[in-house]
Amino acid sequence: MKDIRYEDTITELERELRHLCTVIKQKGREILTNFEITPPQFQALQYLINEENLTIGELSNKMYLACSTITDLVDRMEKNELVKRVRDEKDRRVVRIYVLEKGHEIINEVLDARRHYLDDLLQDLHSDEKKAILKSVEMIYSRTV
Amino acid sequence: MKDIRYEDTITELERELRHLCTVIKQKGREILTNFEITPPQFQALQYLINEENLTIGELSNKMYLACSTITDLVDRMEKNELVKRVRDEKDRRVVRIYVLEKGHEIINEVLDARRHYLDDLLQDLHSDEKKAILKSVEMIYSRTV
Repeated sequence: MKDIRYEDTITELERELRHLCTVIKQKGREILTNFEITPPQFQALQYLINEENLTIGELSNKMYLACSTITDLVDRMEKNELVKRVRDEKDRRVVRIYVLEKGHEIINEVLDARRHYLDDLLQDLHSDEKKAILKSVEMIYSRTV
Repeated sequence: MKDIRYEDTITELERELRHLCTVIKQKGREILTNFEITPPQFQALQYLINEENLTIGELSNKMYLACSTITDLVDRMEKNELVKRVRDEKDRRVVRIYVLEKGHEIINEVLDARRHYLDDLLQDLHSDEKKAILKSVEMIYSRTV
């Protein structure tokens, strides 16, 4: 792979994206300190809301973490009344994780704080410029899925 | 904060950026499995190269991790010949972490693999479109620093 020459745009884009993701990750962690959830809990809640009622095994695959780690994570979230385990009605051997109202509320508040941060950050830009940025980010993200 | 109404662009941008960062993080981890460094070691090496010869305390602040955790991390990296501890010439009480040739080589190879991934991802785009994407990412990142 050593001999491949990338155009400068890709080299710069890789660096800018890597740094941007690091900053967003740190800002995200800072925001979470105001809420009673941890970064892995925030990530788990997003998956559980977007993909609806995953099992421990499914969540483990999504998060690239061992089932035992996810079990501990879900235990703490259940204790904190963010989620609850419910037996699948169609197959009683399967246990699914449901997000409780408090879980939904916290996620909404965290996302709101993140939007607030981004809104502040880009407040000097015109609406068209923000739309151009959105289009760019979509162009990358859409190619990854 | 609940009553603030964000324009749709910000709401979408926050979501797209969050998802993009998650995908890039997962891809980054996948790339690292081909190299003999872990994600925290990759992050530490970046700081140590960009900011030159930090101390344990300075690296601890950058990475938002306890000094004891950073000490363990640096121990493993030193054993793996990625870095070495060197006493500061001006103040012998201060120990700085130097990146060794092997550390530089691994970082270059990892970054090359990441550029390769991004280059593949955006290969159907014209040079101008890639430049527009770079400009957008820079517009966000420049406001965070």
